[in-house]
Amino acid sequence: MTTVPVSMTDVRELVDGALRAAVGRLDPHTYRVAAYHLGWADAEGRPRKEPAGKALRPALALLSARAAGAPPESALPGAVAVELTHAFSLLHDDIMDGDRTRRHRPAAWAVYGEPAAILAGDALLALAGEVLLEAPGQGSARAARALAVATRHLIAGQSLDLSFETRHKITLEECQSMAAGKTAALLACSCSIGAVLDGAPEGLAAALEGFGADLGVAFQLTDDLLGIWGDPAATGKPALSDLRSRKMSLPVVAALNSGTPASAALAELYARPEPPGEDELAEAARLVDLAGGRAWARAEAARRVESAGEHLAGAGVPTPVRTEFLRVADFVTHRDH
Amino acid sequence: MTTVPVSMTDVRELVDGALRAAVGRLDPHTYRVAAYHLGWADAEGRPRKEPAGKALRPALALLSARAAGAPPESALPGAVAVELTHAFSLLHDDIMDGDRTRRHRPAAWAVYGEPAAILAGDALLALAGEVLLEAPGQGSARAARALAVATRHLIAGQSLDLSFETRHKITLEECQSMAAGKTAALLACSCSIGAVLDGAPEGLAAALEGFGADLGVAFQLTDDLLGIWGDPAATGKPALSDLRSRKMSLPVVAALNSGTPASAALAELYARPEPPGEDELAEAARLVDLAGGRAWARAEAARRVESAGEHLAGAGVPTPVRTEFLRVADFVTHRDH
Repeated sequence: MTTVPVSMTDVRELVDGALRAAVGRLDPHTYRVAAYHLGWADAEGRPRKEPAGKALRPALALLSARAAGAPPESALPGAVAVELTHAFSLLHDDIMDGDRTRRHRPAAWAVYGEPAAILAGDALLALAGEVLLEAPGQGSARAARALAVATRHLIAGQSLDLSFETRHKITLEECQSMAAGKTAALLACSCSIGAVLDGAPEGLAAALEGFGADLGVAFQLTDDLLGIWGDPAATGKPALSDLRSRKMSLPVVAALNSGTPASAALAELYARPEPPGEDELAEAARLVDLAGGRAWARAEAARRVESAGEHLAGAGVPTPVRTEFLRVADFVTHRDH
Repeated sequence: MTTVPVSMTDVRELVDGALRAAVGRLDPHTYRVAAYHLGWADAEGRPRKEPAGKALRPALALLSARAAGAPPESALPGAVAVELTHAFSLLHDDIMDGDRTRRHRPAAWAVYGEPAAILAGDALLALAGEVLLEAPGQGSARAARALAVATRHLIAGQSLDLSFETRHKITLEECQSMAAGKTAALLACSCSIGAVLDGAPEGLAAALEGFGADLGVAFQLTDDLLGIWGDPAATGKPALSDLRSRKMSLPVVAALNSGTPASAALAELYARPEPPGEDELAEAARLVDLAGGRAWARAEAARRVESAGEHLAGAGVPTPVRTEFLRVADFVTHRDH
């Protein structure tokens, strides 16, 4: 199993208190749903020890303050805001996608019902803006604006993803554009928000955003590879889970657009009305591989990581910080869950 | 029918262009749902002429700029932001409450499905912050923060309202607190946002907020009275609609807590498992009246309007602006729809 880079293990501790203080402002009903979703409490509201999630976005936010020469703590409101926005999007995504399981537990909507889960997501989104605008200094309004724009792009990506469900032909370009919105927009914002809060020049902020945008697509490519070939024991999802739900993920769309005999066979499999059996799932995975979808996704993830690194070159990011950013990129693309 | 005060008929024209420009930033799928919900388009995306809603919140936002001695146009980003927030809350409320009809048309979720409607609501909420933070001047961050806090209170009110559905005993205080959140928080923000954008002193902003908070509860009391005794031809809802859905509205909760024989009879009617028949509905309305719920709601609305006016006295609001605010309060409590 890949080791989490140091900057990421420190983060939970730094961010946790601020995140809990922010969520603690919510009314008791909404708080209960949010605390469950964030992994702090079980369905009855009893505290849980196990931390939830990778805290990737807060880690990047703190690192981005250091990129501008500011102390990581100065980015705490940014770290909290991106994590709240991420939590909001997962909460609502689970409802929209009808996913009943999140991180080995029942999804919040499956426990508390859709109305309470919709409302809790709304509350987390509004809270993200509130927390960010309380940050001292003139950078907070600029950061809040950047987060609002990133949220708009995130929603556009999710909206495109929803539209895929009712369409037959999806181009690789559309699928990459979906990932750029749904996954990369918030990661790009996370990679720059600490610097923006510190009042960094536009050039540095843009370089950090560019890094995060590429990192985000690499992240999604890795997710999509794990969604087909990941080890169920590590991912916590059933084997071949993305094929099971006939997800139009990047390797699948690349395979479908490859113009090979395998792509035609895959299209035929995906178009069948009845739910796929185990034999069909194994066959679909083989066809994605045969049509070049797996190799393309791996190579594209590597290209994106390289391109991400190029954004940082010459942007004036201190070398140790740049090294940490690259370490996170390496972690993101080599993780097993 | 009560005449809409002049300041409100002018508003649509001023605000409409800015509102359309903001919503025009959304991706095409989300735009389609938002444009339908806002009354600009039919389900197929064809333009509609008929304007939707009363534009009450934008009218108050523009007026609040004038309260600070600023031109009404300076509050346009505020007017757009509060209308977007209002639109977001209605979109999500209809899903949560399972209401299939909104302003004589199918609700957005009933046309486009829940996922698309959840997403469009999210987009409108994020857009509200984005638009506000683009306003020139230092007041924009303060205004965006006030709107985020108001949204948190709005959500707390809706959350309390949801909790009422599964409870037997609700106090009048809880019900007033629900209305203070769900309805009054955004109206209070609307009444002050233009002044806040202009950098008005805290005292003036607080007075305008206080006016709006009282106005908001008066608005809800009037809504609740119309929900029982409103003319279906004017309200567009079936007669006795709030009793039909056994809503725990303010007059009903006041009646249930009156300790009169009528309140016990009303509680018995509300507790019946089967849907109420027409005779039962008429009887419930009679009992709310008999238990003093109707008289209380009318008197409380008048008290709130008076209290609202007191907030403006001595706050330094120019007399013509104060007169217009009071005219809006009068309209709100004497409307028939």
